[in-house]
Amino acid sequence: MTTLAELEARIEAIKDQKKTVKGDKAQEAVLAAELKKLNLERSNMLKAAKAGAGEDDDDAAAKKFTLKVPKGTKDYTDKEMAIRERMFETIKATFRRHGAVTIDTPVFELKEILSGKYGEDSKLIYDLQDQGGEICSLRYDLTVPFARFLAMNREYQNFKRYHIAKVYRRDQPSVNKGRMREFYQCDFDIAGVYDPMIPDAEAVRVMVEILESLSIGNFAVKISHRKILDGMFAVCGVPADKTRAISSAVDKLDKMPWADVRKEMTEEKGLDPAVADRIGEYVKLKGGKELCAVLAADGPLSSNESAVAGIKDMELLFTYLELFGVAHRVNFDLSLARGLDYYTGVIYEAVLLASDDPNVETSGVGSIAAGGRYDELVGMFSGGRKIPCVGVSIGVERVFSILLQKENLARVKSAHTEVYIISIGNDLLPERMKIARELWDKDIKAEFMFKANPKLPAQWTACERDQVPLAIIIGGDEVAKGLVKIKDMTIKDGSADKEVVVPRADMAAAILAKLGRK
Amino acid sequence: MTTLAELEARIEAIKDQKKTVKGDKAQEAVLAAELKKLNLERSNMLKAAKAGAGEDDDDAAAKKFTLKVPKGTKDYTDKEMAIRERMFETIKATFRRHGAVTIDTPVFELKEILSGKYGEDSKLIYDLQDQGGEICSLRYDLTVPFARFLAMNREYQNFKRYHIAKVYRRDQPSVNKGRMREFYQCDFDIAGVYDPMIPDAEAVRVMVEILESLSIGNFAVKISHRKILDGMFAVCGVPADKTRAISSAVDKLDKMPWADVRKEMTEEKGLDPAVADRIGEYVKLKGGKELCAVLAADGPLSSNESAVAGIKDMELLFTYLELFGVAHRVNFDLSLARGLDYYTGVIYEAVLLASDDPNVETSGVGSIAAGGRYDELVGMFSGGRKIPCVGVSIGVERVFSILLQKENLARVKSAHTEVYIISIGNDLLPERMKIARELWDKDIKAEFMFKANPKLPAQWTACERDQVPLAIIIGGDEVAKGLVKIKDMTIKDGSADKEVVVPRADMAAAILAKLGRK
Repeated sequence: MTTLAELEARIEAIKDQKKTVKGDKAQEAVLAAELKKLNLERSNMLKAAKAGAGEDDDDAAAKKFTLKVPKGTKDYTDKEMAIRERMFETIKATFRRHGAVTIDTPVFELKEILSGKYGEDSKLIYDLQDQGGEICSLRYDLTVPFARFLAMNREYQNFKRYHIAKVYRRDQPSVNKGRMREFYQCDFDIAGVYDPMIPDAEAVRVMVEILESLSIGNFAVKISHRKILDGMFAVCGVPADKTRAISSAVDKLDKMPWADVRKEMTEEKGLDPAVADRIGEYVKLKGGKELCAVLAADGPLSSNESAVAGIKDMELLFTYLELFGVAHRVNFDLSLARGLDYYTGVIYEAVLLASDDPNVETSGVGSIAAGGRYDELVGMFSGGRKIPCVGVSIGVERVFSILLQKENLARVKSAHTEVYIISIGNDLLPERMKIARELWDKDIKAEFMFKANPKLPAQWTACERDQVPLAIIIGGDEVAKGLVKIKDMTIKDGSADKEVVVPRADMAAAILAKLGRK
Repeated sequence: MTTLAELEARIEAIKDQKKTVKGDKAQEAVLAAELKKLNLERSNMLKAAKAGAGEDDDDAAAKKFTLKVPKGTKDYTDKEMAIRERMFETIKATFRRHGAVTIDTPVFELKEILSGKYGEDSKLIYDLQDQGGEICSLRYDLTVPFARFLAMNREYQNFKRYHIAKVYRRDQPSVNKGRMREFYQCDFDIAGVYDPMIPDAEAVRVMVEILESLSIGNFAVKISHRKILDGMFAVCGVPADKTRAISSAVDKLDKMPWADVRKEMTEEKGLDPAVADRIGEYVKLKGGKELCAVLAADGPLSSNESAVAGIKDMELLFTYLELFGVAHRVNFDLSLARGLDYYTGVIYEAVLLASDDPNVETSGVGSIAAGGRYDELVGMFSGGRKIPCVGVSIGVERVFSILLQKENLARVKSAHTEVYIISIGNDLLPERMKIARELWDKDIKAEFMFKANPKLPAQWTACERDQVPLAIIIGGDEVAKGLVKIKDMTIKDGSADKEVVVPRADMAAAILAKLGRK
């Protein structure tokens, strides 16, 4: 029987899917029909529940609550977790390859710590109820808690840290696209005063290394610099009080054509159309290191102090990215602005490329990793004592959605069991237990069926379902003779080495040898 | 400068410490003096802050908020995390050795899912603020979300799962003792219909295996059975409506003498003193498997159906614990009751033993792992469809407190860096970057200083501070000749193999060989 929660999840999933097939009339029709059917089913189920609530049946629990997880959150099954853990381990390995250590901070912070850090998005912060005592909120990202940690712990002036943990946003969820209200962030940040652009280059290298190791397909990194953007807005004639609003309009250029962005600037945000057109010329500019020279030769920009500083940074950054072997992944792109307020220097964002055209971004996915330099954030917590920082955050939920689509979930192996202990005939539970004990004592991962006298087929089914590589088989005969049979489940039936019979005393050694351990 | 938050944390720590030295007059006096000093400092700091708030200085941030984490939570530094991660890995390895897989559930649940599961302790649940939409609460443990998961996912009828994650309780925190408002639980549970006591025995074996592998000292497992307790209360004459209250009084016997518990039963809870005295005789009983026979021969108990069933379970359990090689750790103890409402069968709890007397529990620590059988919980979510479960939860925060006391935190190694790249002389940044790139490409963990022209002593300091085992050293000479020097930091100065000079092309291979990798 389908539960209401399962039904609603399927309805949401199909709604998401409908958006992705937009334009494909045939697919749209199929999904619309499915949706209609599910909605009917849902409405019937709700009616039945309402009717049931008036009656005096003993299914009282079903009336008291809806059996579901909160909106925008989900349970991850063992097989999904196997994929997620592999992904997290890959990312952690890269962070550690670069010398990063980890810290942990609480899931909730004092509300005032988060206030004024996220601009408009502050409305998405989850607050805890005031139950007496301090007023707290769930963390919105890992960057602000990191800055708070640096401000509180003065011995951490130079610090390369990673943090893999959950954050919370009361956003409109889209489970299929990996946009959740509870989701993981995987952050790598370098704090400290260093020579220009060296840590920035390492952060970009870390991002590229991770995306290459996750096998999610071809990708590119867009890169720009807040100081160049600021200079550009200034020389184009954007009034200082409009800079932020115009910047956030520019940030939409990956989703909207220039005409629409221009309209937002001029009609919604009241920008002089001539100014918008000047911006329009700049944000077209894309390229590699050579673009630095082009910008440096640009009359207006070359007379703006902020832009000149940014261009100098970008030249140095490209030099370092070449030395690090990742420059070919990186595109200097003046249309990149990034939404967050706290960036002060270089900014970057990785996007997936379409499998059939490396010049086109895969639509509907968005950025799969992003970051930049934020030199002022720590100072907001430490009374002005600055610690410059640069970092990158991997969009793991989007990456997970991509990985999930590539896997056949039913065939994903989640258990790590190495040996399944099988008995033929009755009264062998004590024998199976003794064998399990010996294997566990030797650090061998072992299981057996929790039945006094299990049937043979059921034991084989369990062994095969969990893809356990080795089976130990005992019958009354083997036990009497002090022998055990070991069957290698990973090699073909009929092979000479498929089965061996060894003395009970040699069992653990034989198993360890087969597992390639000593 | 000490911050207010640091000061307050130290005051709390000393208050905790004072409780543990109770009776030791000299220690108490020292701590009282320290406390007085810190309290004075705190009050001066608060006065200064108040005075400052009226002025117009530019330390505005300091006025707007207190720089601290919420009460009962803490940040974990990289070195603390190194200890914690080792502890979690050890626990996870045991869970996996027994074939368990992991799932993940959201940090918050619908409030109604948690309602009515924790008895009196429900008042400790953290609620999220109603910001429109569903009403949610932070999870209080991992067991109720697991039961909710089983009820929602009908394909998981037989399931051995572990879950290592944070839970939340608005309790009075005591950081030094590892009692926090945000803390980790490490749970292992076996769900499904099986033959009696087999999974129960494996849960106890898992608990013992973990506590043995964590090297926290000697410990013992107290074990009992809810059905025996229920039978005992019935035959002693406890009215049915008082059973729960009397059970929770019995549960205090590890902290209070019998006389006080008896007083609570008779004076506070209105139990007939003759009934209390009969209970008093039973809860004295402690022993091993032989206690089963004693109880089976007990006149009143042997005529109570519930008690007889419980005694039969315990006999079988002891047989299995012997086969699993852990019976010597386990004490049958009728004074064990466990607070949680949902247990229905065997219950157990591990306690640390004093290092100088294995018959005495270490005071002030409490249980370090606990669990039991809960056959009715899943049914509360699935309209009565029962899935019997048995599990164990490791008290990792208490274990962490113990491990932390044993470590010299300053000497704990947190970074995993294998090679530190050092240059002598100027203009070698590009060379260091190229070397880093090559090492990273070969999956070697490498770092270098983020300076264009770093001083040599600073580089050695960084290499030694992070306990990096290998250093690569280059000077202008080496680069010109195409050579690098590799220094093994783990062997004594002056040893013949302390330093080798190899051609640049052989560098990575030489490093891999030194690291014992290929």
